[in-house]
Amino acid sequence: MRVVDIINKKKKGEALTKEEIEFFVQGYVKGEVPDYQISALYMAIYFQGMNDEEIADLTMAYVNSGETIDLSGIAGIKVDKHSTGGVGDKISLIVIPLVASLGIPVAKMSGRGLGHTGGTIDKLEAIPGFRTALSAEEFIANVNNHGMAVVGQTANLTPADKLTYALRDVTGTVDSIPLIASSIMSKKIASGADAIVLDVKVGSGAFMKSLAEAKKLAECMVQIGKSLKRRTIAIITDMNQPLGHEVGNANEIREVIDVLRGKGAEDETGIALTIASYMAIASGGYHDFRSTYEELQQVISSGKAIEKLEELISSQGGNPQVVHDLFQLPQAEYHIEIFSNQAGYIRAIDAEQIGLAAMLLGAGRKKKDDAIDYAAGVTLLKKVGDYVDLNEPLCILHTNLDHVETDILKAYAFQESVPNVTATIHEVVS
Amino acid sequence: MRVVDIINKKKKGEALTKEEIEFFVQGYVKGEVPDYQISALYMAIYFQGMNDEEIADLTMAYVNSGETIDLSGIAGIKVDKHSTGGVGDKISLIVIPLVASLGIPVAKMSGRGLGHTGGTIDKLEAIPGFRTALSAEEFIANVNNHGMAVVGQTANLTPADKLTYALRDVTGTVDSIPLIASSIMSKKIASGADAIVLDVKVGSGAFMKSLAEAKKLAECMVQIGKSLKRRTIAIITDMNQPLGHEVGNANEIREVIDVLRGKGAEDETGIALTIASYMAIASGGYHDFRSTYEELQQVISSGKAIEKLEELISSQGGNPQVVHDLFQLPQAEYHIEIFSNQAGYIRAIDAEQIGLAAMLLGAGRKKKDDAIDYAAGVTLLKKVGDYVDLNEPLCILHTNLDHVETDILKAYAFQESVPNVTATIHEVVS
Repeated sequence: MRVVDIINKKKKGEALTKEEIEFFVQGYVKGEVPDYQISALYMAIYFQGMNDEEIADLTMAYVNSGETIDLSGIAGIKVDKHSTGGVGDKISLIVIPLVASLGIPVAKMSGRGLGHTGGTIDKLEAIPGFRTALSAEEFIANVNNHGMAVVGQTANLTPADKLTYALRDVTGTVDSIPLIASSIMSKKIASGADAIVLDVKVGSGAFMKSLAEAKKLAECMVQIGKSLKRRTIAIITDMNQPLGHEVGNANEIREVIDVLRGKGAEDETGIALTIASYMAIASGGYHDFRSTYEELQQVISSGKAIEKLEELISSQGGNPQVVHDLFQLPQAEYHIEIFSNQAGYIRAIDAEQIGLAAMLLGAGRKKKDDAIDYAAGVTLLKKVGDYVDLNEPLCILHTNLDHVETDILKAYAFQESVPNVTATIHEVVS
Repeated sequence: MRVVDIINKKKKGEALTKEEIEFFVQGYVKGEVPDYQISALYMAIYFQGMNDEEIADLTMAYVNSGETIDLSGIAGIKVDKHSTGGVGDKISLIVIPLVASLGIPVAKMSGRGLGHTGGTIDKLEAIPGFRTALSAEEFIANVNNHGMAVVGQTANLTPADKLTYALRDVTGTVDSIPLIASSIMSKKIASGADAIVLDVKVGSGAFMKSLAEAKKLAECMVQIGKSLKRRTIAIITDMNQPLGHEVGNANEIREVIDVLRGKGAEDETGIALTIASYMAIASGGYHDFRSTYEELQQVISSGKAIEKLEELISSQGGNPQVVHDLFQLPQAEYHIEIFSNQAGYIRAIDAEQIGLAAMLLGAGRKKKDDAIDYAAGVTLLKKVGDYVDLNEPLCILHTNLDHVETDILKAYAFQESVPNVTATIHEVVS
């Protein structure tokens, strides 16, 4: 078998066999197939696509390229959740205690972030004492004892995906639906998920800019789930502005606490409840969306949800008092109010601009080894659809830096009439 | 400027600017742009194509990547000729003395061959004493004194084309018309050609299998010539069987002598006269095809053509007696007749199979540094359309090898009725 023949086959629009897909994936990981053949092949895939079978085969070739996590020590269906990424996206932290409150085991593996803010693991580490480096035994014991655990990803999962992703990034083949879908799904499957709920973000602040694209990606991932016998549900949610009011690490933890106390922003609470509901449904124990959603609302209003968060924090060595006293979370030295330079209705808030501002304040990493300032971040006082007067405060920057230059006002667009606010949840694909 | 942005631009089908094309070509030659970006970019070009301006810019970027030949020391329009390659293709050797007989300067740079037989330079070296390693001064002096000279290509012409061609070969991007056209044209322009006549081969033994493809390539190259002010004429000729009756080195020289004596095969003579006529027309001194063709026929029948070949040979140190005594050319020790295993009309002779047989007999190189046996080759006794009886000889293998295993019979296909013989010259594009 020769890779050049595989390239030519795909170039002509023919489907690749499982053996051919395994051949180039394994060869690439072993260093036997050079970068330049994979980049040409992936460009051909960009143009010619892949059928459902090829995409499932590519996903499993990625899975089989590295270690896989064995969650068989945990009884029940293990549901994982993935977001395609957005600014202020703290949904994972909300749904873990929510779903665990229903008695569904949540064994969550998460990563650190590169870019606007930290990842789920970084955000949790903003809680004093919180340990995310659990051993495999401790992780499984915690899920069995508390119904949930969150651990930093340390195993060498899907190295083929990591290698090809780095190559795609510099060769213009990131935006291929089959390649994105197999990349995401391989990581979830290698992490031991039995069922998967996907939060596919769409809008100016997301990778998928149009609903049509987001839907294609969602359908492709749900199909991979079907092919590989992992129940998969995708929820397409809006990312035309940051999610909720807080962007950062400690301040996102504050907002998680607010939501679980029933005091969260409407958009964020709605998305979290929806995703938690579909996680419950994907686990097989729940069937009707509406009643599941209402049961989860009850979990919040009864105080069970916030107790569950407290339990998560203390079970992993964190200070559970943060739940009752937000001042025990890291506080920034400076809080800079940003005032509107005009009056009007907010038509748009560019999520990428807000994320960039948060990173520059210290909340995110530019490079892999940068330190994160847990206290840094942005609080959005106004959201799309709100009316603001001239010189009314729009947001607050939290930072420990003595000197901050920001053009965060560029993120805001105004109009005179009441704007249409786009739906928070666009569609569910299953 | 970033190559990934150039890749993305081409991927979306946008035209690249001259600056962008120069950037990636120069960067690649300098080793600053990695293989994997060029292979992805060329795959995007395969799918999205290039417009006339981009193709001309790519051609000139290849030309400017290395040395160029200065032929200004030769008065008049220097016409070069190029063939896309075929088995038994000895047309260059026929047209050099033919065109020079008209007083048009022919300054021919040629290469060595890899594959079925040697290149034009190898074939000439089958003539005892013939020197192809002329200095630049000697080369120009020979053209000025004799109206023609042939020299082996030693300058570092179009290194960007050499590098990208090697990469295209292993990444499935050889068969892209813009990439083929700019590759061929850049070499001719770097060699100092003022005008170019292209022999575009089409058929089972050629790279272009269909007339439609061959026509696209021809049109693309003629357009490059227009853009870069080099008069260019392309002749699409048939390669559904080897050209003429001889395949090898010394035996191709024999056939060249036959043609220039007016005793050549009809197909070969017709193509050579056509190409020589268009070279005369491209030089600007001739205008009417029919009368030019007839004048060249006169050049042959008058004996001037064979005298001119004799002059070429002696002017470059070769033994001119070969023209009068073919036995002074290298002779193989063994001549093996191959007999037909059936009766019928020859429907097809697979040129690639005949070429492969010639190579295995010693006529060609498998690897760049292999030696060539000038005496080895194949003489085709029968061509497409001929009727053969069972056990009638089809061809003769010439070799110095003690032991030859051949399945050359596989190259022949027969039928009971008289076959359609495809046109030797399909079309002229200018």
